[in-house]
Amino acid sequence: MARTVGSNGARTAQAIRQAGVKLIYQHGYEAMSLRQLAAEVGLQSGSLYKYFDNKQSLLFDIVRDHMEDLLSKVSEALDGLSDPMDRLRAYVGFHLRYHMTRMAHVFIANMEIRSLEAEHRAEIVAMRRRYEGLLDAILREGAERGLFKVTDSRVSTYAIISMLTGICMWYRPDGRLSQDELVTIYTDLVTGGVALTGLPAAVPDARRRRA
Amino acid sequence: MARTVGSNGARTAQAIRQAGVKLIYQHGYEAMSLRQLAAEVGLQSGSLYKYFDNKQSLLFDIVRDHMEDLLSKVSEALDGLSDPMDRLRAYVGFHLRYHMTRMAHVFIANMEIRSLEAEHRAEIVAMRRRYEGLLDAILREGAERGLFKVTDSRVSTYAIISMLTGICMWYRPDGRLSQDELVTIYTDLVTGGVALTGLPAAVPDARRRRA
Repeated sequence: MARTVGSNGARTAQAIRQAGVKLIYQHGYEAMSLRQLAAEVGLQSGSLYKYFDNKQSLLFDIVRDHMEDLLSKVSEALDGLSDPMDRLRAYVGFHLRYHMTRMAHVFIANMEIRSLEAEHRAEIVAMRRRYEGLLDAILREGAERGLFKVTDSRVSTYAIISMLTGICMWYRPDGRLSQDELVTIYTDLVTGGVALTGLPAAVPDARRRRA
Repeated sequence: MARTVGSNGARTAQAIRQAGVKLIYQHGYEAMSLRQLAAEVGLQSGSLYKYFDNKQSLLFDIVRDHMEDLLSKVSEALDGLSDPMDRLRAYVGFHLRYHMTRMAHVFIANMEIRSLEAEHRAEIVAMRRRYEGLLDAILREGAERGLFKVTDSRVSTYAIISMLTGICMWYRPDGRLSQDELVTIYTDLVTGGVALTGLPAAVPDARRRRA
């Protein structure tokens, strides 16, 4: 955890976090040395300890900040939507846009789980479960209302999140397609993948005619 | 590249490769030391150089072996199939089953691209493009034949491969669902995601009736 420091100190702590993200993204957590990190922000190695207890607490701090931000922003994105298809579209669009703008954080949060100590890892895994749980609930509700075909909501959740997060592996802001175009392509893939095949809009109509 | 060694030597080279996979998977390539690696296979550090020029050539060897194997086996899986939907199902099933059995290799091949020297990286990226190109071609052919809705085959290829490869992040052989059940769930997600919404089986029938 970041120690209590003044406003200058808070800026330095933030600079250390940013440099940490950059170096871990480039070299991996275990390979990053505190000496490298100190040089990157123009400090002596020893001075780092005013801001972070150790390398592990810096990694934990980076990943936890990222997860807290992700959880609060996804709630905003879903706020006020009740239809499962609307909620699914909102979740997909949010996830993609967020991941296209924070690629290094996402990479670290996903790849360096292995480098977190058990207690830290448990806390991050619990936050990730909450984030995944929102999509799982959307899929289950869609299935209950007869809109989605979902055999196993948990597996579908993992599959969809992997698909969306994979955009971090190749997305470039100056690429061929805009964020909007990419969101449309992925949204079609996801909604088509869970929609009741062959009966997407037809089911409610048929019911109405029979009633 | 592995040096020319006798049959005992070939076994040792293979043991080094396996230990390398394990250590890189656990710690990351940059963090793995040759001393650690030598200890893992019961050799002196210096003896490693009889088998591999250096740490970089070991990584390259591991990743190239993996890609060669992937390319030759996917060809077998698609052999004799001409219908785009059959080919898509075969590609999805192959990719999942292969990745469920070689999780550490896959993780390394995907994550340690960053640690390969430029020339090595170019060779691996070209092999990966060949592998992705097979799926891309299936999607384009399906779209041309009016079976699939695919706005951008390249993006859909990346999206589908990320979805499928993501299984390495959580699959356990002793888990709740069998490989067959998982393949079915993912195949439904992928084929539903690219099928022409609402008209999957209906199109050919309607055409036949009109003809």
